[in-house]
Amino acid sequence: MLIDCHGHFTTAPPALGEWRERQIRAFEESGARISPDELRISDDELRTAIEQGQLKLQRERGVDIALFSPGAGKMAHHYGDADTSLSWAHVSNDLISRVCGLFPDRFVGVCQLPQSPGDALALSVRRSAVELERCVEELGFVGCLLNPDPSDGYYEAPPLTDRVYYPLYEKMVELDVPAMIHVAMSRNPSLQGTCAHYLAGDTAVFMQLCLSDLFTDFPTLRFIIPHGGGAVPYHWGRYRGVMQDQGRPPLEELVLRNVFFDTCVYHKRGLELLTDVIPARNILFASEMIGAVRGVDPETGHRFDDTKYLLDSIESLSEDDRRAVYGGNALRVFGRLEGVLREAAKESGN
Amino acid sequence: MLIDCHGHFTTAPPALGEWRERQIRAFEESGARISPDELRISDDELRTAIEQGQLKLQRERGVDIALFSPGAGKMAHHYGDADTSLSWAHVSNDLISRVCGLFPDRFVGVCQLPQSPGDALALSVRRSAVELERCVEELGFVGCLLNPDPSDGYYEAPPLTDRVYYPLYEKMVELDVPAMIHVAMSRNPSLQGTCAHYLAGDTAVFMQLCLSDLFTDFPTLRFIIPHGGGAVPYHWGRYRGVMQDQGRPPLEELVLRNVFFDTCVYHKRGLELLTDVIPARNILFASEMIGAVRGVDPETGHRFDDTKYLLDSIESLSEDDRRAVYGGNALRVFGRLEGVLREAAKESGN
Repeated sequence: MLIDCHGHFTTAPPALGEWRERQIRAFEESGARISPDELRISDDELRTAIEQGQLKLQRERGVDIALFSPGAGKMAHHYGDADTSLSWAHVSNDLISRVCGLFPDRFVGVCQLPQSPGDALALSVRRSAVELERCVEELGFVGCLLNPDPSDGYYEAPPLTDRVYYPLYEKMVELDVPAMIHVAMSRNPSLQGTCAHYLAGDTAVFMQLCLSDLFTDFPTLRFIIPHGGGAVPYHWGRYRGVMQDQGRPPLEELVLRNVFFDTCVYHKRGLELLTDVIPARNILFASEMIGAVRGVDPETGHRFDDTKYLLDSIESLSEDDRRAVYGGNALRVFGRLEGVLREAAKESGN
Repeated sequence: MLIDCHGHFTTAPPALGEWRERQIRAFEESGARISPDELRISDDELRTAIEQGQLKLQRERGVDIALFSPGAGKMAHHYGDADTSLSWAHVSNDLISRVCGLFPDRFVGVCQLPQSPGDALALSVRRSAVELERCVEELGFVGCLLNPDPSDGYYEAPPLTDRVYYPLYEKMVELDVPAMIHVAMSRNPSLQGTCAHYLAGDTAVFMQLCLSDLFTDFPTLRFIIPHGGGAVPYHWGRYRGVMQDQGRPPLEELVLRNVFFDTCVYHKRGLELLTDVIPARNILFASEMIGAVRGVDPETGHRFDDTKYLLDSIESLSEDDRRAVYGGNALRVFGRLEGVLREAAKESGN
């Protein structure tokens, strides 16, 4: 089974973005709230968006299941206040839930959290635990996106290892769901989004984890660091060396029981490095589809984000390792995924 | 000739750090200034620091020349005001100049700039041009360190492609000297220095350059992005794809005439990727010595930062490419280096 652990609903009907714009504008102009009920998107619109977008590409590439979350950049947690983020998370997650309901054997939900920066951080983390529970228990989701920089480009929040985040981690452990670490948009003109802020966030959080004892407090907590782990595998020697200089345990003990990398690296050479340096049990297939890069690579004739094609061409990956990367690891890291898929199969009579 | 383009005086006698602490404290407490004349370091102290530190390692590894700059983290441009940074740059650069004078056939200077964040940015850039000219014309330096984040961890400055930086670029072009892009310390608890902020800064600046037409305005401007280019070579496909999606020219045209990467990547697998993905003419040998990682890699028995050992073991590098990476490119990118070395040889009678 080929499981893409990193898909976003970037093709949502325009009404979603329009609702969000009204929400932001109303709050900025007068502190007013826009009701989620004002958003109207029909099932047919959702079906079209998915069938002409993600599902078409999944079929072409042989992807069976996508773990599907709201557009990451669009989470944009810095707008408005904690209630703004809460309402936006409800709207976004409910829409993902509808997609998963329409295509139950193709999409499984991963939720956006109602995070907020600054003084609202602690409240927003507690509410994130509540929203996570709602999405998992009521909507059948299997994980969440956790934004390490709700200031959206200025890195003003404490590290993800700070105790302010513990209420969320307690809930994640209780529910047996992991988080994909994923920054949202950048409003910082010095940090472009997909090619700077995303990779910087991935890299920063890995080092936060290396320097903390978070996994002593939460031995079963699990994080996926997307985009191939940012700069981390390329600089694996630097991390090994600095941890050794500081008298910390080896990375295998320190983080690799709890931290996983996805395969969103858009050239064969990069994926070769990832699969050579990082143990196969820590790598999860993903394409970030439909996302950062949309064109066809003239060097291969395949889309840049067709990581299935790229991984298939890497001969050094053993068959066992390939099975783990393509799906086995996802079933292990997303502890509830197998049960959710079993339910979906039962309901559809397969 | 083996030229290390990235060495820092991290082993400076303690008096330097003590002067800096007094400078910061005096300004914070009462706005007072500490005179550079209060710093006393003897030639013998400098000789000992270098001979037991950088020079010892250079001899062991066969490094002929190091391009030598003040400790990058210690630039710490956010402290005090523009005058604080100016005085600190004078002190730091004058000390580098003394080291180069004591070991003229071993060290060539690269200067720290008197940058400052916030309202002082524009003034500090104009003063940086003046300090660069002093260091190049009077002290025989061949390049500078340019900090893309003088806020030290919050990325509050405009991108390096902003016109506020043009006075410095005009001077760099006039003097025919490149800049190594190098952030300083991080005062942000979410962004550790050497393994997060450094790599994030490298990555962010590469994308700033990709999105601008800076090199149309300055066709001969040259930047070295250190630490193997941050996350960039590992994600080369992502950059190629996003530039293509945006209708921008290929990276070779867009940036590779002006942007170079150093080899501060501390494992063989990473350096293989760098040398496979990036044209050899864009790679400059470097070790970041004595810097981020100081221990011995138990997997190789060599120090993590012994990039000479690692590069020697990469068989796919042709002899021509190896010569370019080990020294030829440095002589080309640092346009004044050959002249400075010739002068040094003449004076020492070699």
